[in-house]
Amino acid sequence: MKKYNFSPGPAKLNKSVLELVDNNILEYKNEGYSILEISHRSDAFQNILNKTKDNLQKLLKIPSNYQILFLQGGATFHNTFVASNINKNKSTTNLVTGTWGTKTFEDFIKIRNSKQLLINSSQLKDFLNIPNQKELQNVDYVHITSNETIEGIQMRDFNCLNNDLIIDSSSDLGSYQFDWDNIAYLYAGAQKNLGIPGVTISVIRDDFIEKNENPTYLNIKKLTDKDSLLNTPPTFSIYVLKLMSDWMLNLGGVEFFEKQSIENSSNLYSLLSKYNDHVSIPVDEYSRSRMNVVFNFNNSDHEEMFFEESLKNNIIGIKGHRSVGGVRISLYNSVDKTEVQYLLEFMKSFFDKL
Amino acid sequence: MKKYNFSPGPAKLNKSVLELVDNNILEYKNEGYSILEISHRSDAFQNILNKTKDNLQKLLKIPSNYQILFLQGGATFHNTFVASNINKNKSTTNLVTGTWGTKTFEDFIKIRNSKQLLINSSQLKDFLNIPNQKELQNVDYVHITSNETIEGIQMRDFNCLNNDLIIDSSSDLGSYQFDWDNIAYLYAGAQKNLGIPGVTISVIRDDFIEKNENPTYLNIKKLTDKDSLLNTPPTFSIYVLKLMSDWMLNLGGVEFFEKQSIENSSNLYSLLSKYNDHVSIPVDEYSRSRMNVVFNFNNSDHEEMFFEESLKNNIIGIKGHRSVGGVRISLYNSVDKTEVQYLLEFMKSFFDKL
Repeated sequence: MKKYNFSPGPAKLNKSVLELVDNNILEYKNEGYSILEISHRSDAFQNILNKTKDNLQKLLKIPSNYQILFLQGGATFHNTFVASNINKNKSTTNLVTGTWGTKTFEDFIKIRNSKQLLINSSQLKDFLNIPNQKELQNVDYVHITSNETIEGIQMRDFNCLNNDLIIDSSSDLGSYQFDWDNIAYLYAGAQKNLGIPGVTISVIRDDFIEKNENPTYLNIKKLTDKDSLLNTPPTFSIYVLKLMSDWMLNLGGVEFFEKQSIENSSNLYSLLSKYNDHVSIPVDEYSRSRMNVVFNFNNSDHEEMFFEESLKNNIIGIKGHRSVGGVRISLYNSVDKTEVQYLLEFMKSFFDKL
Repeated sequence: MKKYNFSPGPAKLNKSVLELVDNNILEYKNEGYSILEISHRSDAFQNILNKTKDNLQKLLKIPSNYQILFLQGGATFHNTFVASNINKNKSTTNLVTGTWGTKTFEDFIKIRNSKQLLINSSQLKDFLNIPNQKELQNVDYVHITSNETIEGIQMRDFNCLNNDLIIDSSSDLGSYQFDWDNIAYLYAGAQKNLGIPGVTISVIRDDFIEKNENPTYLNIKKLTDKDSLLNTPPTFSIYVLKLMSDWMLNLGGVEFFEKQSIENSSNLYSLLSKYNDHVSIPVDEYSRSRMNVVFNFNNSDHEEMFFEESLKNNIIGIKGHRSVGGVRISLYNSVDKTEVQYLLEFMKSFFDKL
C-alpha cells in the first residue's frame, strides 16, 4: 500500500527516478556490471560525475568562478570542514535562527573565533530589509542555515545581506532561485530535495579555496584539485543525484519547483490559518518555511488523535522533531500537488470533526 | 554481456545481493516506500542497523567490549578522525608497508606527534616474528594498514605485535580470521569485501572512547553515544552492508571466505610463478596479498597486449594503480572460484602464446 510520505528527510523520491535506479541495479546500461559495482576510476563513472556537475550548474545557475565538490559526512561534517578552511585572518559571525545554526556555531567556535547573532522568526524580516546591520559590519563571512527544519524557519532573502555568505542549505537547495553574488561557500546534504543520504554538495567560489596545512579530508585545496576523486566517492549517491537533477531539469528546473512549493506550502498554511481555533503556527508569517510546515494543536489531546488518524490514512513522516514535538509536514521537491491535495483533504476532514 | 570484474574497489557484488537490492528499490518490503526513501528515525531502519551490527559481531567475532560505528568519508576521513581522537598523552608509531600507510602517517603528523617505521615486503616476516622489536617498545598505539592495495602487500599476523593496534583494514576486513586482543580501533570502508562506497565501519574498544573537545563529526564520544544516528547516516550503503553480511553468514562466515581467498590467490600466484620467464611478482612470498595480486611483465610490450586481450575476453578492473603501473588482480569476497578459473585459463593461454 503506497504511503503518503511527508518525511523531513531522507525524503520521498519521484517514481520515475526510482524506476531508473531499479533498471540499473542488476546491470548498469549495457556495461556488464551493476551501478552498485561501478568503479570510480571508470569512464562510465566519470560521465556520471561530469553530467551531475553540468546538471547542477544549469539547475542552480552556478557561475563559472565556482567549483562543485561532492564529499561525504553530511552538513554535520561540513560544519567542521568549512570552519577549518576559512582563512585564519578573516572574521566570521554565525547568524542563527534555529537548532542547526546553533549546532554549527558550537562547532565553529571549537575551530576558530566566531560571534553568534541570534535572530528569531519575528525579527528576521526587519533584519534582512534594513541594510548594513551594525552587528555585521566589518564581518568577512556570515554563516547562515537557510532553512531550519526543526523550527520551520526559512531565510530566502539572504542576498540582501552585504556580507560574503557561507550557507548550509541542506534542506532547501533546489527549491527556489537566488543569486550567487554574495555566496562564498554553500553546502547541502542531498537527502531532502536532491536525492539520498551519503553525498553532500559543496559549491565553492574560487577565492575561498586556499592552500593550508589541514589533513587530507579537511583540506579544501587538495580535494578540489582532485575533483571529488581524491578518495572513493559515494558513487551510488552521486548517481541518484544525477537522476534527480535530470528529472528536475526535464520538468523545468528550479522555477518549476519554486512554483510548486509556493503553491503547496501556501495551501497548507492557509488551511492551518483557517482552523486557528484548533491549531497554531509558531512561526511569524515572513519567516515560514516552504519546506517544513510546523504547527501545534491548541488542545494537546488532539495531537495524538491526529497522528493515529493520519497513519490509518497512510500518511507518514509528520511527527515534529523530538526536541520540539508538534506536527511537521515536509514538502520537498518530490512531494507533488496530488499528494498535498490528499493531505489537505484529510486534515480538513479531521479538523471539521473536532 | 557479463563482465569478469576484478576491480580493486568499488568491487563486484554477489548476484544474490544485487537481486535483493533490486527487489526493494520500488518498494521496501511492504512498507509503502522505497529503501532509498527510508527514514533513519524509522523502526524499519533501526531494525536494519541493529541487524547489521549483530551480523558484523558474529561474522568478525567482535567481543562485547567493542562498539560498532558507521560513519562516512572512507579511510581517508578516518585517518583524521582516529588521529584526532587518540588520547593526547599516548604515543603512536605508524608501521608503514605501502602507499596508504604513508598517506595515513602524513595525516597523523598534521594532527599529533607520531613516528614512522618503514618495513618493506621482504622485512615483514622477520619483523612480525621476532617479539619486542625495539622500535615499538613503549609505544602505546601502532597504526597499520593491514592490506596495501597498490603494492599488493598484506600483513595478517598483526596479533604477534605486543602493542595496541589501530588498523585500517579497508581492503581485507572479512577475508580472514584474527584475534581482537591487541586491537584498539579498526576501520574499513565497505566497498571491497563488504558492500558499496559511502559507509565506513569502525570497531572501537571501549577504553579508546574518551571525552574530548573535538567538533561534532570528529568527536568519537558524541558519535558512539548516538549509535551511528547523531546525523543522517548513509542509509542505503548500510542496507547493502546488511545484505552482504547476511550473505556471508549464510555461506559459512569468514572461515568460508578465508578458504576461498587462500585457494584463489594461491592458484593465481602459482600460475604466475610457473610463467616467471614472462612475468614477475614484486612482493616477497610471505607478504603477498590475497586480496590484490600484483605482477609485471618482463617485456613491457606484453603488458598492453595483455590488457587488450583481457578486455576482449570481458575481463575488467585489472590495470595496476596509476602510480605503479603493471597488472593487479583483486580477489575480494564476491569474486568466486569459477570467475578465477576463467581468468586463470585466459592467462595461461595468453602466456602460452608469448
